[in-house]
Amino acid sequence: MTPKERLQFPTAASKAELEEGTIFTPRFDRDGLIVCVTTDAHTGAVLMVAYMNAEALRLTLETGVAHYWSRSRGTLWRKGDTSGQVQTVTEIRTDCDQDALVMMVVVAGDGNSCHTGRRSCFYRRVDTPSGRELAFEPTG
Amino acid sequence: MTPKERLQFPTAASKAELEEGTIFTPRFDRDGLIVCVTTDAHTGAVLMVAYMNAEALRLTLETGVAHYWSRSRGTLWRKGDTSGQVQTVTEIRTDCDQDALVMMVVVAGDGNSCHTGRRSCFYRRVDTPSGRELAFEPTG
Repeated sequence: MTPKERLQFPTAASKAELEEGTIFTPRFDRDGLIVCVTTDAHTGAVLMVAYMNAEALRLTLETGVAHYWSRSRGTLWRKGDTSGQVQTVTEIRTDCDQDALVMMVVVAGDGNSCHTGRRSCFYRRVDTPSGRELAFEPTG
Repeated sequence: MTPKERLQFPTAASKAELEEGTIFTPRFDRDGLIVCVTTDAHTGAVLMVAYMNAEALRLTLETGVAHYWSRSRGTLWRKGDTSGQVQTVTEIRTDCDQDALVMMVVVAGDGNSCHTGRRSCFYRRVDTPSGRELAFEPTG
């Protein structure tokens, strides 16, 4: 397999194949990215939302450790390389039209996934109905 | 408030405000959309990943019922209008850089959120390490 072939994921032949098939045919957007919702394998809590390109997804599948594409830095990113917060993948799911992933992980190091030093990036709740203010969640 | 003002969300004055502030300053992408991870308020399971424009987010905040922007149809979409699967919002969270939302909902009607007739859109698991095949999850 050439390096290029390695990064090619198949395309679904039909809507039925896409939605009810058993071949993984992830759909990347015009930037070559797919959105990934990373959840805690133990609690199910949403830890972060990030993006993968084909290389990040392939490396994640091959190594069992979460890799992402950093849109802000424009680089491939093995989560935990500098922070120690390595995410070991226990399961990856895809949705009906295969343009989103849910990835369940066990977090190493201090157990955090957010660069602000929290377990989850979702540590603030929108104060509805005004929708103007945020309140900090102690469970974040 | 003019209709235009109603749809304007404030912008964070700094990175510190964005990440540690208490004003909701959602960041929409170049298409005017923000990604929303919708979870079951009872179980925490991820039900779907969808997108909102400012109007959908404003209507969701004002009515307490989930509205989205359908990228495939190019229309505003009040979830459940045709299916009866209305999603009543119990909480909305935003992430560190406020470009993603997690929304917890209670689903009416038959309790499903996926158009394929399942509770969740994430009903297939990637069969790692090959990463080529999908397996159906009964809990989907």
